[in-house]
Amino acid sequence: MRKEVNIGLIGLGKVGSGVVKLLRERKEILREKLGFPLNLVKICDIDTRKKEEVEREGILFTTQGEEILYAPEIHIVIELIGGIEPAKKYVMEAINQGKYVVTANKALLAECGEEIFSLSKAKGKEIFFEASVMSGVPLLRMIREGLVANRIDYILGIINGTTNYILTQMEEGLSYKKALSTAQRKGFAEPDPTLDVKGLDTAHKLIVLSYLVFGKSISMEDVLIEGIEGLTPQDLEYAKEFGYAVKLLALGKVESEELEVRVHPTLIPFPHPLSRVKGETNALYLKGDAVGDIFVAGKGAGRLPTASAVVADVVEAAKRVVEGKEKVVWSPPASNLRIKRKEDIRTNYFLRFMAVDKPGVLAKISGILAQHHISIASVIQKGRGKKIAVPIIMMTHEAKEKDMQKAKEEIDKLSVIKEKTLLLRVENRISP
Amino acid sequence: MRKEVNIGLIGLGKVGSGVVKLLRERKEILREKLGFPLNLVKICDIDTRKKEEVEREGILFTTQGEEILYAPEIHIVIELIGGIEPAKKYVMEAINQGKYVVTANKALLAECGEEIFSLSKAKGKEIFFEASVMSGVPLLRMIREGLVANRIDYILGIINGTTNYILTQMEEGLSYKKALSTAQRKGFAEPDPTLDVKGLDTAHKLIVLSYLVFGKSISMEDVLIEGIEGLTPQDLEYAKEFGYAVKLLALGKVESEELEVRVHPTLIPFPHPLSRVKGETNALYLKGDAVGDIFVAGKGAGRLPTASAVVADVVEAAKRVVEGKEKVVWSPPASNLRIKRKEDIRTNYFLRFMAVDKPGVLAKISGILAQHHISIASVIQKGRGKKIAVPIIMMTHEAKEKDMQKAKEEIDKLSVIKEKTLLLRVENRISP
Repeated sequence: MRKEVNIGLIGLGKVGSGVVKLLRERKEILREKLGFPLNLVKICDIDTRKKEEVEREGILFTTQGEEILYAPEIHIVIELIGGIEPAKKYVMEAINQGKYVVTANKALLAECGEEIFSLSKAKGKEIFFEASVMSGVPLLRMIREGLVANRIDYILGIINGTTNYILTQMEEGLSYKKALSTAQRKGFAEPDPTLDVKGLDTAHKLIVLSYLVFGKSISMEDVLIEGIEGLTPQDLEYAKEFGYAVKLLALGKVESEELEVRVHPTLIPFPHPLSRVKGETNALYLKGDAVGDIFVAGKGAGRLPTASAVVADVVEAAKRVVEGKEKVVWSPPASNLRIKRKEDIRTNYFLRFMAVDKPGVLAKISGILAQHHISIASVIQKGRGKKIAVPIIMMTHEAKEKDMQKAKEEIDKLSVIKEKTLLLRVENRISP
Repeated sequence: MRKEVNIGLIGLGKVGSGVVKLLRERKEILREKLGFPLNLVKICDIDTRKKEEVEREGILFTTQGEEILYAPEIHIVIELIGGIEPAKKYVMEAINQGKYVVTANKALLAECGEEIFSLSKAKGKEIFFEASVMSGVPLLRMIREGLVANRIDYILGIINGTTNYILTQMEEGLSYKKALSTAQRKGFAEPDPTLDVKGLDTAHKLIVLSYLVFGKSISMEDVLIEGIEGLTPQDLEYAKEFGYAVKLLALGKVESEELEVRVHPTLIPFPHPLSRVKGETNALYLKGDAVGDIFVAGKGAGRLPTASAVVADVVEAAKRVVEGKEKVVWSPPASNLRIKRKEDIRTNYFLRFMAVDKPGVLAKISGILAQHHISIASVIQKGRGKKIAVPIIMMTHEAKEKDMQKAKEEIDKLSVIKEKTLLLRVENRISP
């Protein structure tokens, strides 16, 4: 049996430095648990200012990824540079070289997952990516192994801490802009927040999750994606009056062999545990046919939480290394699911119209909705008086996305409507 | 590589039949995931009425455990008879025979864990027991593998569905007795509810968890255990007025190399996610030094949820079987923790005195508390008038268990005190 396992790390940023710290501080305890040591032997980063500090710990430093990929003594490659290239090249080549790969790169897995997973399968080298969806929360391991006997047909989660932090601030009354800058100041949002606030990061993670849970490779185009930029604190207040919190949710749902995948700000009723998830916390709710409902929550980002997941993956990979080649390579079941077209989605809607305050406006709006087979569940008109426009808040019964979009388009053309209508979707399925 | 894995099941009760069902219904999908089939070849039960149905499925039936333990073709033994004997004999002998064991038997692991784990380690055959603590919720796997890089110093959980169901009913105003009989009628409580309502089942699970989380073998005597029998709906109402729910919690906490383990009805403040866990749901909150706070909830019992965990364990064991003998046997890190003596525990207390309604009573009570270094945080006297005794509700600052018990003993001897004082502990540590 091999007596030690050697690790190379590409990308010494925030998470990378957390991984170095954990591997150092837990070296003895991990050796005791595993029966052999985990040696971080080489680190690659383009920033040469880190060289000295790395070498002081007895670890080799390089600026060339190849010096890790082609080092025969290295068994496991940790990729933490993020983005598509050169991360993709490194990951593919590492697998080609017979190494196990650990990555936290959801964008890479979402965009190039099919290619990477099939190479991994062909080479019999599993790729580990626990950190990519919910950071330190061991969600993927739970689904893949702990729930292996289940058919999971429903997942619903808050899997982006930045947007949940911003929405929580907005619940306190802050404008979107102020909440975003607070998040940036506290380090919860990037200087360029596009990936987060537009729902793209959440969609990346949903794609990774869907591959695991439903065995289906989906592309960004398959996912209905909307961000949180159009929301105001007032909208959250209105939703609250109807008994709902507004969260940026990722939803995956299977019905009649059709998979529905969506990311958008969603009204979720207050009894639901997701409605109470505050700040940068992440949480996922899922339904297995044997196990029933499971809810899991924890930090969804950060240096040490993410490093915690990376090191757990390294430990799994290291077990594979010492066990030799006969390892069973897990793969999700082949799936015959069709992907539901966005226009066919059916849900309840929350609408906020900005209309002039005069008789007949509501009749016009509801007339158009009726023409498109959309029936109203409840409606509140907010404020009165001299303002150019006052908000009308409406909840609909279940309707079809295609109908809803057409109706909204027509309504927005009415002269009595003074702003683009805000359209949010409602998730009424409640855990017991 | 071996081409199939054979399983023997001992104990065809509720969970056993769920395991049979899942292994049958998921046979194809598990074969696809694993690359080889899982064959349930033999079932042992003392009830011969089940013979015919079992044999109709092409599975051998026996009433003799030995026919499974000594069958050379069987690789994995599932033990689902519960209790100590003959379960212990079967588990030990199966390991001795070089088989992997899957069990849901928390009583067995709590009472004889040290013996069983050391045999398992000596023989290099891991024993799997995911189902033993939170049924289908893959908690142990999460801790053991997903959080392997963490030092966990705090766990707090609702890990008994029966008592949480009863307490939830009592929150609605039902008496303990009525809530218990409702639970029994709905199948959430056994005809003899002792193990559940006295906190013993929770303590068994806490012992299993502590072995995993803290690496410490503890005995039932080490755990401060109190049940829920002394509670009234009124007490829950009083706690609510102070901002707390009352839950039967299992607590494990490490401070200054001392491990504190307790099971008792606990006041937990409403913002805490555990305070909102209703009905038969189980939930656990834990704190890892790298990952931060994690919260997980799900069904803590039931035929299919428990079978879900058993089958997940069978899948893990089957991977070991096909991979051959060189498997790394996981074991918790050796622990130098001391176990805190019960009398040294420090916490806040909730007290309900039943005292005659006359001047000077409160002075007497607080005098005795003061003598024992216990200071009062707040106090409410409930009701007045002609009743023999009225409740006085008190919250204390942090005090020592030994002092508290002495003070309570003295107070209960006062002639103005008409019932035994109810003493509950408060857990104020809140997740962010």
